[in-house]
Amino acid sequence: MFDIDPWLIRTHTLAKDDKRLQESLTAIGNGYMGLRGNFEEGYSGDSLQGTYYGGVWFPDKTRVGWWKIGYPEYFGKAINGPDFISMPLTINNVPIDLAKTPFHDFYLSLDMHNAVLHREFIVDLPDTQVQLSFDRFMSNDIRQAAVIRMTATTLQGSADIRVESRLDSNVHNEDSNYEEMLWQELGRHADSNGTSYLTVITKPNPYDVPRFSITLSMTNHLTSPAPATRTAEDGSLLVQEDLSWHLGEGESSTLTKFVTVVTSRDIPTDKQVEAGQDLMSKVAHKGYDALLAAQNKIWRERWDMADVVIDGDDEAQQGIRFNLAQLFMTYYGDDARLNIGPKGFTGEKYGGATYWDTEAYIIPMYLSVTPPKVVRQLLEYRYNQLAGAFHNAQQQGLKGALFPMVTFNGIESHNEWEITFEEIHRNGAIAHAIAQYTDYTGDHSYVDDHGIEVLVAISRFWADRVHFSKRKGQYMIHGVTGPNEYENNVNNNWYTNTMATWTLRYTLKMLPEAKASQREKLAVSAEEKAHWQDIIDRMYYPEDKKLGIFVQNDTFLDKDIRPASSIPADQRPINQHWSWDRILRSPFIKQADVLQGIYFLNDEFTMQQKERNYDFYEPLTVHESSLSPSIHAILAAELGKEDKAVELYQRTARLDLDNYNNDTDDGLHITSMSGSWLAIVQGFAGMRQHADKLSFKPLLPKHWHKYTFAINYRDRIIQVTVDSSGATLQLLKGDPLTVWVYDKPEELTASVRA
Amino acid sequence: MFDIDPWLIRTHTLAKDDKRLQESLTAIGNGYMGLRGNFEEGYSGDSLQGTYYGGVWFPDKTRVGWWKIGYPEYFGKAINGPDFISMPLTINNVPIDLAKTPFHDFYLSLDMHNAVLHREFIVDLPDTQVQLSFDRFMSNDIRQAAVIRMTATTLQGSADIRVESRLDSNVHNEDSNYEEMLWQELGRHADSNGTSYLTVITKPNPYDVPRFSITLSMTNHLTSPAPATRTAEDGSLLVQEDLSWHLGEGESSTLTKFVTVVTSRDIPTDKQVEAGQDLMSKVAHKGYDALLAAQNKIWRERWDMADVVIDGDDEAQQGIRFNLAQLFMTYYGDDARLNIGPKGFTGEKYGGATYWDTEAYIIPMYLSVTPPKVVRQLLEYRYNQLAGAFHNAQQQGLKGALFPMVTFNGIESHNEWEITFEEIHRNGAIAHAIAQYTDYTGDHSYVDDHGIEVLVAISRFWADRVHFSKRKGQYMIHGVTGPNEYENNVNNNWYTNTMATWTLRYTLKMLPEAKASQREKLAVSAEEKAHWQDIIDRMYYPEDKKLGIFVQNDTFLDKDIRPASSIPADQRPINQHWSWDRILRSPFIKQADVLQGIYFLNDEFTMQQKERNYDFYEPLTVHESSLSPSIHAILAAELGKEDKAVELYQRTARLDLDNYNNDTDDGLHITSMSGSWLAIVQGFAGMRQHADKLSFKPLLPKHWHKYTFAINYRDRIIQVTVDSSGATLQLLKGDPLTVWVYDKPEELTASVRA
Repeated sequence: MFDIDPWLIRTHTLAKDDKRLQESLTAIGNGYMGLRGNFEEGYSGDSLQGTYYGGVWFPDKTRVGWWKIGYPEYFGKAINGPDFISMPLTINNVPIDLAKTPFHDFYLSLDMHNAVLHREFIVDLPDTQVQLSFDRFMSNDIRQAAVIRMTATTLQGSADIRVESRLDSNVHNEDSNYEEMLWQELGRHADSNGTSYLTVITKPNPYDVPRFSITLSMTNHLTSPAPATRTAEDGSLLVQEDLSWHLGEGESSTLTKFVTVVTSRDIPTDKQVEAGQDLMSKVAHKGYDALLAAQNKIWRERWDMADVVIDGDDEAQQGIRFNLAQLFMTYYGDDARLNIGPKGFTGEKYGGATYWDTEAYIIPMYLSVTPPKVVRQLLEYRYNQLAGAFHNAQQQGLKGALFPMVTFNGIESHNEWEITFEEIHRNGAIAHAIAQYTDYTGDHSYVDDHGIEVLVAISRFWADRVHFSKRKGQYMIHGVTGPNEYENNVNNNWYTNTMATWTLRYTLKMLPEAKASQREKLAVSAEEKAHWQDIIDRMYYPEDKKLGIFVQNDTFLDKDIRPASSIPADQRPINQHWSWDRILRSPFIKQADVLQGIYFLNDEFTMQQKERNYDFYEPLTVHESSLSPSIHAILAAELGKEDKAVELYQRTARLDLDNYNNDTDDGLHITSMSGSWLAIVQGFAGMRQHADKLSFKPLLPKHWHKYTFAINYRDRIIQVTVDSSGATLQLLKGDPLTVWVYDKPEELTASVRA
Repeated sequence: MFDIDPWLIRTHTLAKDDKRLQESLTAIGNGYMGLRGNFEEGYSGDSLQGTYYGGVWFPDKTRVGWWKIGYPEYFGKAINGPDFISMPLTINNVPIDLAKTPFHDFYLSLDMHNAVLHREFIVDLPDTQVQLSFDRFMSNDIRQAAVIRMTATTLQGSADIRVESRLDSNVHNEDSNYEEMLWQELGRHADSNGTSYLTVITKPNPYDVPRFSITLSMTNHLTSPAPATRTAEDGSLLVQEDLSWHLGEGESSTLTKFVTVVTSRDIPTDKQVEAGQDLMSKVAHKGYDALLAAQNKIWRERWDMADVVIDGDDEAQQGIRFNLAQLFMTYYGDDARLNIGPKGFTGEKYGGATYWDTEAYIIPMYLSVTPPKVVRQLLEYRYNQLAGAFHNAQQQGLKGALFPMVTFNGIESHNEWEITFEEIHRNGAIAHAIAQYTDYTGDHSYVDDHGIEVLVAISRFWADRVHFSKRKGQYMIHGVTGPNEYENNVNNNWYTNTMATWTLRYTLKMLPEAKASQREKLAVSAEEKAHWQDIIDRMYYPEDKKLGIFVQNDTFLDKDIRPASSIPADQRPINQHWSWDRILRSPFIKQADVLQGIYFLNDEFTMQQKERNYDFYEPLTVHESSLSPSIHAILAAELGKEDKAVELYQRTARLDLDNYNNDTDDGLHITSMSGSWLAIVQGFAGMRQHADKLSFKPLLPKHWHKYTFAINYRDRIIQVTVDSSGATLQLLKGDPLTVWVYDKPEELTASVRA
């Protein structure tokens, strides 16, 4: 859909037949808010209008066929919020609507340097041609601010231009559970010369979930050759400023719309108008150019730490930058109350909630490409939601904490029993993220304080959740769903059992070094520790010695084992063709399961174990989760299966840009976007970090000439370049250190060639 | 709540605090329609108003958290239909409403002889006392007719009485999915001297399910000492005839309301008014007394064939008659398009649809207590729904027929994947019912024609649903839910595997004797038969040789096995206290599973096998299905565990009358009502029928003096009496035959003492 370009997502074609996809791919955000690539002037064709505000959500009543005890009362969903880009416009009384109005020279681009969206086109009216261009960005300097700049130039004839610049909360979610209006108006003021504002609040709910209020303010600055008429209007859930002016032939005018957004997450409702005005003064005082300059600076710093340069594969180059840019637009650790939703700010699916994706797939990358405080914020997010996790465990009659599968506030808000109640392995990933942060950064201050509280709470959950099988004389975990969601309610999922005992081990290991006050508060008795140790010692792990593999779960090997390649092409993906029971009893695996455990605990397994398991499981895997190929690519690279690593990498690299799963029209696969980075850095470059040892075993994919990336590691920036002659490591910032390259220690002072 | 009486459900107390329960227990029906024990004059207190018409239902959109391929589009539900008993009345301008009006000498009774509901009370008004009495029944002679007779007598003072006799379709289901009105009016006519009628139709649906129309007609006959004023009124979805008359002191009047009901199931909408009028002429011509006499005759014949007399336990006596009466009010085989819903005509829960309950629990009793044509109709019901069963299998990508878990038309309309897609054992029970009918009646005409079609279709399903485990070299059935719904998505449920191969065996056995035209049409090839035989020969059944038991499913024995008695009392029933995952991984069993198989295929197992399995599984069973205790009581009796048999029998005998599960306010547990009969006849009296051999091994529960029952067996009525001195068998009707009593053959010519 877009041209190949190293830094731009650009096209000269308006994708009328695939507008939603184009909108998803041109979504922008700043971690505080974000929106899809909708058009300011409106669009009457098929389109998914979406503006989302971090942490603003609504609890929708759980609807199920048959209520089961323990079900969450509500399903939380990020909701479509007030639209602030809206600027319907007419030229010579003709409404401009690219679904209907004749136009040419269309150009649309998202600049990944700075997350600025640009669009321009020339409208063809009777005897008149007007070029319109739009630029917009969500400021990373003043995160409550967005800026939209429209420039109109008459190329031929003259134009009477009229713009209705709006703040409009007449929006709704497309999701079928939301047939009604979720926003109510609290106040509004339309001002043709000052600042207009609109305050809205989510409708009441019966679940004690706070109602969210938002105040949007706007001012409109117009430079025009002729004097403009300004009036203001308001309506229900809407304010607008109407501007009319005349452009003679060859004349040009620019309208800049500054918007500020404050929400009840930060400012009490009754102070929002004032806070919005204050922010607006700041924003308007800075002006467009200064805000853009600040934007450029912030993004330059991000890229300096994170950029990946691929020489010899322009598509891959564009793909990796797109993924990094979209992730940074979604989250950069500015607010510990927020997390990374599977669709970020680009769509409504999956409800913008937090999943285990963050710990499993995002943190391993963010540790290397952002400052440590970014990941630290993600850890604090879980710590701050411990109360909800205790609640979730209690709902199941269990001790300790069960972090939720889907949440905004720590309380589980997903209602498929086989997921909510049984996909408890998520607790393992949340514990493991603490270890990853601690091991990678060397910073023990989290694990020794907040972290140990999370670890003990999770360990207590595992200790209560296992049962002792008298017959086998071992501990077991029955009734779970592993990462492979194509099996449900299985017994002894190897991954879950493994991560459970890993958590117990790690907690026992870290407890002695924890802050004394925490140790006292947590009061883990000798008896409790002994019980944990007993579980560690006598846990049952399904294994097949003959095949030399860990078995995904009890009875897995009784299935009709056959490779995914035996599935007829017209039945792929199976989740769009097969009934659920058929998927469940098939041997086909959605995403890494045993292999996810081997990926997480990479140093605990021999190459032979890795190879046997990889060779057994990968052929059964249909990779129908966008989270799947990257993990397999990393292991394939480690095992020297370069072609397979490349093939799997390619499935992650441009998943959205090439609409690989044919569902990007709903929004981007944000939490999968780390996959291509992981496949390059942990896969091709073989980066590992374990026990204070940073190591690489780089390989160069055949069709690439060279690739370069930087990582942030313990106050250093290390740049790694891999080309046909080998790898070059360069210390861009920080003190010397020893790194292992191809299993050999190298003292990295400035640059090392290996 | 009700007095103990052998033939009456009677009380002198209006249960204001438990009105719904009283309504459930005084529900009446005639197989064509039925209604709860609501009051004619209305009742402003808590009440569940319900009138239901056999086969009249509505498809409600399936609502789930996450859509899975194969889900039914709609959930079918019997709907609350037009109310025809409604007769609001005032006396001296005071509305009579037992929630508010002072009254005394209340009496309510349901006569099980003839299914007539009687109610009377004296209202206390200023200076006036009026006795009101109501009788009503749904005619078993003219099944489209209902009759209500009200008699008013002034005991003190005089009374101006005004009655609004209504047909009223302003009704709705309480079920939360039905917030809207489901009925639309097609026509109405209110006539103060002739016949009023109301025609309504269910609202449109997008699923190609026919809309149902109903025309109700009524005439009101009044005998009063003073002339009555009659007017008629109509409104939306309502017609009424208003009657006003005067009663002097000591005077009495009787109002008889005849109602006829025709539906689009039998009469096209445009012919219904005429058909209703014709029926009304017939009904009114017969009159109340003749209709009642016909009613009595029909019910006397039923009781002659089915009555159970228990001497020494009045509560048990009342319980068994109540169960028989309610079952006969629900279904007596008059219409092969109808079946037996779990709540019959007594409530809305479970949607009035057909479950496997019919084949598993009702047919074994109905074979003995009703004429063979009744069960034959139930078999034809499934045959007629074969198209739906093929559709269901196809939804899962499988060959053959999968009969539905929940249905009105053969198409599955339940939406829990673990039930709909996986509780496929239902197919086995449906096949087994054919064998039961054939073996018991000796009539092969069903199995040789329609039956073989059903059997082959089910066999083809099983043959496609199994898979071959290369590792074990055996066939397996993965991903099922057995009768024990407290486990989901298990592998190799012994019961399911056993019933699957039983079906294949029985089909292969019956195929050669089937009608040639059917054999030709079904075209079961030699190869297909060989494949079925291979599945029979190489099916895997989980078994534990050491324990000497069949294992409920793979890995069941790895559970934390402990008896249900270890569950704290305040956590029972567990389905109201434990989260679903906890129930699933517990060892506790909802209802007979392995033991259900042993019950069905009773002659295939040794006493030792029965005992080992019973002793292992019964202690794990929480009997939280009303279908559970009876099956266990039968096996306990067979194993000589008399006390246990009695204890379990008692849980079925008065389940509703004593509101044992505390949920009878919703409606009666109709399909569980056979349980007490089965426990007495197959349990205490040890009746078995296998290979043309009818046998008994009677025992007398300690606290009973004597019990007597009759069974209908191959054109004979055999009465069995068991007392402390042994058993007496008497041939009440039909030719002599040999029966086995305590394993000895006895020639039954007139009476046999054993």
